[in-house]
Amino acid sequence: MKKCDIGLIGLAVMGQNLVLNMERNGYRVGVYNRTTETTMRFMEGPAAGKQIAAAKSIEELFNLLDRPRKVMVMVKAGNPVDAVIEQLLPFLDVGDLVIDGGNSYYKDTERRARQLMEKGIHYLGAGISGGEEGALWGPSIMPGGQAEAYQMVEGIFEAIAARVDGEPCVTYIGPRGSGHYVKMVHNGIEYGDMQLIAEAYDLLHRGAGLNATELHEVFRNWNHGLLESFLIEITAQIFKRVDEKTGQPLVELIMDEAGQKGTGKWTSQEAFDLGVPVPTINSAVSARILSAYKAERVQAAQVLRGPEISPLADRKLFIQQVRDALYTAKISSYAQGFAMLRAASEEFNYDLPFEKIAKIWRGGCIIRARFLNDVSDAFRQGGDLRNLLLAPFFRDAVQTHQGALREVVRQAAAWGIPAPGFSASLAYLDGYRSERLPANLIQAQRDLFGAHTYKRVDEEGIFHSDWD
Amino acid sequence: MKKCDIGLIGLAVMGQNLVLNMERNGYRVGVYNRTTETTMRFMEGPAAGKQIAAAKSIEELFNLLDRPRKVMVMVKAGNPVDAVIEQLLPFLDVGDLVIDGGNSYYKDTERRARQLMEKGIHYLGAGISGGEEGALWGPSIMPGGQAEAYQMVEGIFEAIAARVDGEPCVTYIGPRGSGHYVKMVHNGIEYGDMQLIAEAYDLLHRGAGLNATELHEVFRNWNHGLLESFLIEITAQIFKRVDEKTGQPLVELIMDEAGQKGTGKWTSQEAFDLGVPVPTINSAVSARILSAYKAERVQAAQVLRGPEISPLADRKLFIQQVRDALYTAKISSYAQGFAMLRAASEEFNYDLPFEKIAKIWRGGCIIRARFLNDVSDAFRQGGDLRNLLLAPFFRDAVQTHQGALREVVRQAAAWGIPAPGFSASLAYLDGYRSERLPANLIQAQRDLFGAHTYKRVDEEGIFHSDWD
Repeated sequence: MKKCDIGLIGLAVMGQNLVLNMERNGYRVGVYNRTTETTMRFMEGPAAGKQIAAAKSIEELFNLLDRPRKVMVMVKAGNPVDAVIEQLLPFLDVGDLVIDGGNSYYKDTERRARQLMEKGIHYLGAGISGGEEGALWGPSIMPGGQAEAYQMVEGIFEAIAARVDGEPCVTYIGPRGSGHYVKMVHNGIEYGDMQLIAEAYDLLHRGAGLNATELHEVFRNWNHGLLESFLIEITAQIFKRVDEKTGQPLVELIMDEAGQKGTGKWTSQEAFDLGVPVPTINSAVSARILSAYKAERVQAAQVLRGPEISPLADRKLFIQQVRDALYTAKISSYAQGFAMLRAASEEFNYDLPFEKIAKIWRGGCIIRARFLNDVSDAFRQGGDLRNLLLAPFFRDAVQTHQGALREVVRQAAAWGIPAPGFSASLAYLDGYRSERLPANLIQAQRDLFGAHTYKRVDEEGIFHSDWD
Repeated sequence: MKKCDIGLIGLAVMGQNLVLNMERNGYRVGVYNRTTETTMRFMEGPAAGKQIAAAKSIEELFNLLDRPRKVMVMVKAGNPVDAVIEQLLPFLDVGDLVIDGGNSYYKDTERRARQLMEKGIHYLGAGISGGEEGALWGPSIMPGGQAEAYQMVEGIFEAIAARVDGEPCVTYIGPRGSGHYVKMVHNGIEYGDMQLIAEAYDLLHRGAGLNATELHEVFRNWNHGLLESFLIEITAQIFKRVDEKTGQPLVELIMDEAGQKGTGKWTSQEAFDLGVPVPTINSAVSARILSAYKAERVQAAQVLRGPEISPLADRKLFIQQVRDALYTAKISSYAQGFAMLRAASEEFNYDLPFEKIAKIWRGGCIIRARFLNDVSDAFRQGGDLRNLLLAPFFRDAVQTHQGALREVVRQAAAWGIPAPGFSASLAYLDGYRSERLPANLIQAQRDLFGAHTYKRVDEEGIFHSDWD
């Protein structure tokens, strides 16, 4: 039997679907899972009759593989990845390649890459977005590591990735942990998108009184305009879904406690360390956390009264304003996310290809959207573009639509409906375009109570005042 | 010569002032600084003629001290603390006590405490707030570690701490790193306070057009009401200060780039790990970060146009609204901060004394305020109070003043003046009192694209839908 082109370890749904995707594209894949039963179920089920070979041990897997061996690891981020690498070590030879396709923390990836490089083994940390469907039919892939290591799997990755306008949604991201770093920021942006959509829903539902059928129509409509994207599309789809048991819209029966898997949180935490403001992402992570305090919220709702939700004079106009507010907030959020990538690129010498990153996010991944064409264009045209808000296209878009965002923030405050994402996005926009912020007062306070010194606007130097 | 009651290592201004404070209260202090010249200048200057003995080496310092030796370390947080401990080790005996009075990261404190405990040496991590003046005339002290270790210095700490209503602003916080943890959250709250005051200033100055003299009057006035606090007091003082060179208000000549030393950032990062929403603190840290992008902001201000700042119909009313908005936002911010302390107390088994923590913050420290009496009362009366917003006093205060916060958020959005702290505080308030948040949509999306499953409101269990 011909040897396999690549091996894959970890047959949860993501792993299984990547294997099937590779095989469908003409690659022979060897598979191994810690629990052999899972492997067998896969072999007898989805993999039956396909060019997929199963191994019951790592050694057996390696015997199936063509040299240099390429092994993709699809296990839970954290210790499991280290455990698998440990098991691979006795069988890896110089020139072999290990790829971590999970949501690993980029610093772990950098450590593992160093560990294996010392032994002459290649390592790629590849962020993969698109969920289970993406894995099967074409994800967006963000591989980071040595360029020559990427070349070893470029063919496979280009074959399995989603395609937009004929271009595969994968590109070499940069050295070391850059692939997982970019995937982390992608997920942070995804948190922001989802929070902004949730707020739009809340304002239209609790505020403007739209029912699920109307919401379906609104989001379906939005998906034909500037907001066209996977998340808007599935939101429309969700509102259409009727619960079989009760006959009610399913979404209304789902518990309002959002879960998270950590990458959004990491984005916020890393942005603080990097010194980049990503307030929209922060607000999204905080909002998910607050949602989980369900019991306390139920209790608080009994005692903390807010304003009445007054009816709107013009509901149709408000729906349009929410749409334009969502678009403007999305621009603000992506400006933050790409500013973070830029700062990381400089801090870690990643030399990130911003234009291409926007391009590979156009398909396969959760945040895929028409919008990313404009982001990509802005970076292509922008030369050394420091912030998306400075790009003529987005500058003009903000100019046109900011009034709606202001109005929606006002309406949310008046109704007492929380809009942390919308208001953080607006505050970023207004802060970024403020030549003068009130931080001078903060510096005066810090100098007064802590002798932290300050700079002046009219003179070079470091100053300290005796404030008494 | 009689032996010294305590030794202090690190004679920067904070260290010097603590020594002078101890000596003034009748304690003999031995001092050591890495640079002997600094020690000598201190001895010939502020320490001259006082019960303070200088040492030129650690060994000499230890010979000056009464047994069991108590040594307070006042050096920069991070490696310097480890370096000093390393130098102390050869001279420390079982039963001696080392106190870290710097802004150490609480996990470092836990590690050091374990390291020394193994050798039978006591360790306290004591957060100290109040800046240079506080150190000299009475700081707020947050000591964490073994209770018996605290008893060794309780007398000294109670003598040097600030006093409010006859009570010293120091109390035993709890085990291990709890003192530094509480100090970290204190600093996060301080960031929030300062940001909210800065936004009030921005709205009154850029928006309502108040000049420095008027701002001085407004803040002086506020300091006689519910907002009475050190930060409001010094803000009034700052607006009064005229620059000698130019004759202009000094605050207007100070560069609007806020610095930070990390504890605010830690609070945000730790809150994300702990799973507690602290959006006001997050917004304050992000706002400081954004302020530092001065060059980009100047560039952005040229191209990103916002609304005109329209004149107010009733300026006096607006000033009152900003005051009440500041008060309401402050309640929201403290609710977040104390909820974080509560979560940490449970997570780390700190068993934190919330009522006493609020009490010791009433004096000495940067956030000292009349307000903290009400916080302390709320915890005394509240039994197992889960959130300050649920306490009758604050519930009623929010009821009364929330309208002003809504109006100020509206006005900021309309003017295009960033109000990230005000709007995050409002969103927290409205989110916390929302029985139903739109996180159900987020869960539906996550289940659709990632099979993450969801709970239902009408049935126990974990569910997954095939959304096609």
